Amino acid sequence: MTDSTSTTHPPRVDGRADDELREIRFTRNWQDHPAGSVLVEFGRTRVLCAASVSEGVPRWRKGSGLGWVTAEYAMLPSATNTRSDRESVKGRIGGRTHEISRLIGRSLRAVIDYKALGENTIQLDCDVLQADGGTRTAAITGAYVALHDAVEFLRSQGSLAGEPLTGSVAAVSVGIIDGAPRLDLPYVEDVRAETDMNIVMTGDGRFVEVQGTAEGVPFDRAELDGLLALGEKGCADLTRMQRLALGLEA
Amino acid sequence: MTDSTSTTHPPRVDGRADDELREIRFTRNWQDHPAGSVLVEFGRTRVLCAASVSEGVPRWRKGSGLGWVTAEYAMLPSATNTRSDRESVKGRIGGRTHEISRLIGRSLRAVIDYKALGENTIQLDCDVLQADGGTRTAAITGAYVALHDAVEFLRSQGSLAGEPLTGSVAAVSVGIIDGAPRLDLPYVEDVRAETDMNIVMTGDGRFVEVQGTAEGVPFDRAELDGLLALGEKGCADLTRMQRLALGLEA
Amino acid sequence: MTDSTSTTHPPRVDGRADDELREIRFTRNWQDHPAGSVLVEFGRTRVLCAASVSEGVPRWRKGSGLGWVTAEYAMLPSATNTRSDRESVKGRIGGRTHEISRLIGRSLRAVIDYKALGENTIQLDCDVLQADGGTRTAAITGAYVALHDAVEFLRSQGSLAGEPLTGSVAAVSVGIIDGAPRLDLPYVEDVRAETDMNIVMTGDGRFVEVQGTAEGVPFDRAELDGLLALGEKGCADLTRMQRLALGLEA
Amino acid sequence: MTDSTSTTHPPRVDGRADDELREIRFTRNWQDHPAGSVLVEFGRTRVLCAASVSEGVPRWRKGSGLGWVTAEYAMLPSATNTRSDRESVKGRIGGRTHEISRLIGRSLRAVIDYKALGENTIQLDCDVLQADGGTRTAAITGAYVALHDAVEFLRSQGSLAGEPLTGSVAAVSVGIIDGAPRLDLPYVEDVRAETDMNIVMTGDGRFVEVQGTAEGVPFDRAELDGLLALGEKGCADLTRMQRLALGLEA
Amino acid sequence: MTDSTSTTHPPRVDGRADDELREIRFTRNWQDHPAGSVLVEFGRTRVLCAASVSEGVPRWRKGSGLGWVTAEYAMLPSATNTRSDRESVKGRIGGRTHEISRLIGRSLRAVIDYKALGENTIQLDCDVLQADGGTRTAAITGAYVALHDAVEFLRSQGSLAGEPLTGSVAAVSVGIIDGAPRLDLPYVEDVRAETDMNIVMTGDGRFVEVQGTAEGVPFDRAELDGLLALGEKGCADLTRMQRLALGLEA
Amino acid sequence: MTDSTSTTHPPRVDGRADDELREIRFTRNWQDHPAGSVLVEFGRTRVLCAASVSEGVPRWRKGSGLGWVTAEYAMLPSATNTRSDRESVKGRIGGRTHEISRLIGRSLRAVIDYKALGENTIQLDCDVLQADGGTRTAAITGAYVALHDAVEFLRSQGSLAGEPLTGSVAAVSVGIIDGAPRLDLPYVEDVRAETDMNIVMTGDGRFVEVQGTAEGVPFDRAELDGLLALGEKGCADLTRMQRLALGLEA
Repeated sequence: MTDSTSTTHPPRVDGRADDELREIRFTRNWQDHPAGSVLVEFGRTRVLCAASVSEGVPRWRKGSGLGWVTAEYAMLPSATNTRSDRESVKGRIGGRTHEISRLIGRSLRAVIDYKALGENTIQLDCDVLQADGGTRTAAITGAYVALHDAVEFLRSQGSLAGEPLTGSVAAVSVGIIDGAPRLDLPYVEDVRAETDMNIVMTGDGRFVEVQGTAEGVPFDRAELDGLLALGEKGCADLTRMQRLALGLEA
Repeated sequence: MTDSTSTTHPPRVDGRADDELREIRFTRNWQDHPAGSVLVEFGRTRVLCAASVSEGVPRWRKGSGLGWVTAEYAMLPSATNTRSDRESVKGRIGGRTHEISRLIGRSLRAVIDYKALGENTIQLDCDVLQADGGTRTAAITGAYVALHDAVEFLRSQGSLAGEPLTGSVAAVSVGIIDGAPRLDLPYVEDVRAETDMNIVMTGDGRFVEVQGTAEGVPFDRAELDGLLALGEKGCADLTRMQRLALGLEA
Repeated sequence: MTDSTSTTHPPRVDGRADDELREIRFTRNWQDHPAGSVLVEFGRTRVLCAASVSEGVPRWRKGSGLGWVTAEYAMLPSATNTRSDRESVKGRIGGRTHEISRLIGRSLRAVIDYKALGENTIQLDCDVLQADGGTRTAAITGAYVALHDAVEFLRSQGSLAGEPLTGSVAAVSVGIIDGAPRLDLPYVEDVRAETDMNIVMTGDGRFVEVQGTAEGVPFDRAELDGLLALGEKGCADLTRMQRLALGLEA
Repeated sequence: MTDSTSTTHPPRVDGRADDELREIRFTRNWQDHPAGSVLVEFGRTRVLCAASVSEGVPRWRKGSGLGWVTAEYAMLPSATNTRSDRESVKGRIGGRTHEISRLIGRSLRAVIDYKALGENTIQLDCDVLQADGGTRTAAITGAYVALHDAVEFLRSQGSLAGEPLTGSVAAVSVGIIDGAPRLDLPYVEDVRAETDMNIVMTGDGRFVEVQGTAEGVPFDRAELDGLLALGEKGCADLTRMQRLALGLEA
Repeated sequence: MTDSTSTTHPPRVDGRADDELREIRFTRNWQDHPAGSVLVEFGRTRVLCAASVSEGVPRWRKGSGLGWVTAEYAMLPSATNTRSDRESVKGRIGGRTHEISRLIGRSLRAVIDYKALGENTIQLDCDVLQADGGTRTAAITGAYVALHDAVEFLRSQGSLAGEPLTGSVAAVSVGIIDGAPRLDLPYVEDVRAETDMNIVMTGDGRFVEVQGTAEGVPFDRAELDGLLALGEKGCADLTRMQRLALGLEA
Repeated sequence: MTDSTSTTHPPRVDGRADDELREIRFTRNWQDHPAGSVLVEFGRTRVLCAASVSEGVPRWRKGSGLGWVTAEYAMLPSATNTRSDRESVKGRIGGRTHEISRLIGRSLRAVIDYKALGENTIQLDCDVLQADGGTRTAAITGAYVALHDAVEFLRSQGSLAGEPLTGSVAAVSVGIIDGAPRLDLPYVEDVRAETDMNIVMTGDGRFVEVQGTAEGVPFDRAELDGLLALGEKGCADLTRMQRLALGLEA
């Protein structure tokens, strides 16, 4: 599948192989204030992921000895092709924003040991500075790196009760375009995809979230299997890049 | 897999086999006013699905010759175990509500030919009167039946430009409890599920949506495959029951 | 007044005598979760009345030893002739909804001894599933039955400090149509009524609320007296039906 | 009933007879901008009633040839005994405010001939500057005077299609305190009233609205009749004062 | 500059000299309930300033031993030339309202010794009953007088820990119209002003706020100096009138 | 004043002279989508200024032949020292945000010829990515550069009716710290400032806005003059840097 030239369908706009990621970049410590701050880039998609730590947990969790991790996703009005209205001005958060915030939170919590975290809260803010497809998967992948830095910060403060990270997490989008499964879709491919799937996986190759949607024609089991295989490859690649960025691998 | 007694894990609370649906009931014409109105029951989960038709489409679609289908999901405060606050009183719709409304809309639109629908709008309202797990899948399954009735109403009015339904759609939840994949989870199983998956399929066996979430431990590919197989069976069963309810099959 | 055929004005659409109620039905325990749950029907008007109990009272009442009873009224979008917009989506509750919620709460509190209730709260939710006139009076009448069941539940829990119900309460609409006073107006009569009055009374024949509004021409004292007499009869009839439904009478 | 000293119950705080109004004052043209502007005082209750006119009607009424009259009621935070929160700051209008705004609008519309008004809108703003009981009845009574001035303004502009006022309207509160029916309750009586009733009547003695509420013990028919009689007297007195203020009577 | 007849530019609409205030009036105790209540008039601009006191301070200040002063500004819909929409109905406070509320609060806090105030809160409500330019400066000037009365009330209650007022504060608008700097602009001048400036000063002639805005053409340093001089004179005049109104001067 | 070492007050934290700006950087075309996109940095304060163009103007301006320029300011939750809550989540925009958005809009409109702009709208979005004092002045200064780029874009499209920019605009904060006037305050100085002033000036040295606030002790005329002089110098420096960034000067 790696050699896209051997297939009969047309090549990708940016010349990538069907199972190839866009250029991925992590810039750690992009901001000064949060405990973790990572500017993650999936090609032209650019998301600022900040992990702020605070002592204590939400009221409903107080006294449990358990920590909490939560996330909010948002997009600058200027991030998209055509300027979008500001949700703070509209006075309400759209369904899509809510949905993605919840997805990011769930994905990161999948690799957290609340007990080891102790009664600390880590708040992830994923703000899309530029959107070119795959903003939610970039956000999860970058947020993990910011989370890792925030955990190290807590460790350096002596605030942890153990190792709160039980693994790593990364995410990628896959889709079927012109009948062919492709990895990491930019906006131009995303709008044309017949099926769109977001896959969130741990570093050891297990699934945290699988969200597939038939945008046009419903998909069959074989297509689903193809997409899952592509997602597994993409997440494995991203896991390696996260480790490199964190200096855990050379 | 049909004989749950032969497995080593404990039997289900309600004595069902692992791949068995709860008692499913469709009551058509439950209300007088909407073009389609179906009370759907998945065991004790009870959702009122109404399909209201109106001439014309939202502004952004005017003059296109295409119709529109949209959905809203909500829950009565008294539907849940412990009374939940009313979203109209809180003044904002929660993320979960938004997310499910969007899912229902997408699922139904997957079997709609907008051109054949003509510039008509069908609005689905799925109001949960009693919740016992699987409210979103019951809503989709019942909403399809209400949608079918609304389409027949439009046809009787001579308002259609063709056959707007390209197929049928049904949905079911599956999950892993105590290591075993199970179909159509009631609340007591849902809260204990390690992995929770909602599967939306067309009547001819293709996927519209696949949404799997690791609530506790991430799941591997084998577990995912087991869940998908169970979901395929459940949706096929539901498709048959929908056809019976609509009098398309005896 | 009982024989509507002897008057010169045209008969009612549904053939009822002017002082005759529509068919009234109470279905107790319609839902599993709330302490009291009653589906009340006044003809085609159908309201689900749920009474949820919770220990404790609102903050401003804490430590007083007194209980609290409150109510919320709402209507499904699909309940009306033409689909109405969802208040949770609009983000604000309309004036009519507020007004009716307050009326229901006041009406039920008129027969409550807060001291005997102890520091418990009973929350009534009256959700209109189908509207055909008189939804607020049906809601009050049904809510009383649900309240009674909730009180019995609290008694069975040993949570009461005495008998919190000082009486029963029922409500009915009356109006002047084509110059004649009529009892329990369905929608088609309601929109044509020159004067519209809602009367809430206790089981022993005293008034809790009297709300009369001249929709068209102001009404004189004789007309007012006619409406009050009709309302007294209707509430007495409803009181008897409530007692039957509760098994207090045979 | 006029001589309160002959009854056995204690005299009123301000020495009035039970059927005596507080000192009533109308100051016309209190503001420069609106077509009608009246500061009405019922004792220490002080409401600024402004009637603003605008050409045209709300969208749903366009092209009908009919006018429209609507009202909004509000209270300054500083108007009450203890400062109340500003509804604009809370971001939502309370149920009580909604309810009173609707009552004022209905009351004034009862004496309006929409056809004669032509496609003009009159917006009444009733802002309570100081509250000492009976703010809604003072608002209706003052708003009528402002409405009258606004109608004269429209007439002077040649904007009317006839005489839009079919009569006058006034309102008063009555209640039972210590078992005795009393007219026009100030705050100290209002909070102690067992039954509280607001009566809105036309100048020729017919009822527009009757709203009675048992605050404590439900009331019987005799008590209701007593309150109605008192309200009729109060409204007749107010009608005379309105005519004096408008220079229609000397 | 005092003799406006000697300049070549046209005289003011109301015949005032360029450095002359409109007629200023303070009516203390306009309302009965608040500790301080002042109706302030700058010509036809009429603002009701109420100072309500309450024991205790906002949560973030508790236990500090320090008091708090805050302010809210609002305008009646009927106050302006053309009726403006009610912010409570719109459900959100406009930017202009927010901005002025904040300005009033800051201005008054500039002359408050929080320690001497003790843990008491004074809430200023400035409600514009009629607007004819300069509402924010009238509000500040009147609010100071109401604040003074509220402080005297607290003193009479023995609730103060010292003298909380470190001085007085007054405010005035100045602007350049037809090239000439003018003091205290009414609406007709305000809309024509090339530059608009609000100046808040203490009674001893120091600045608390200086807010100048070029509405049309930017202004140079000489013009700025002219406006500042005019503002200094206006505030000095207002300080004298405040002292007269408070009986501190004869 | 340029040699801060000769004064008796302590040196600045970052070693700058009292009349010296922080390091200023403009990065044009930081984003791909908007017509103008500038990342402006005043030391560690980092604001992303985007200028989006759209054909047409708001409804109230249609058919006038005039263009429109407006601005919105916001701050990422992670931009500040301690994470701040997201305004979209709170559902309302704070007063400070409103105030700054309005200031930016007014400042840019001061150098716009609406007629030459034609019926086009330029929307400025100023999103603070990192806050270290002076975010509003950085926003204005950067937004002007983005505006310039957007104007050039419109020119290249042939959409202009002339030269819409009548000049340039820049802004800087000044304040009195320990009795000494200082230019361009970072956060640590801002919180300690006795007086805080924001000055907005055109490239040719005239004032657009002057906003001075005594945070602690009111300031006298001499101090005000000192601050104005410092602001004039700072704006002149910034004007030069803007021209350099735009390639108008070498």
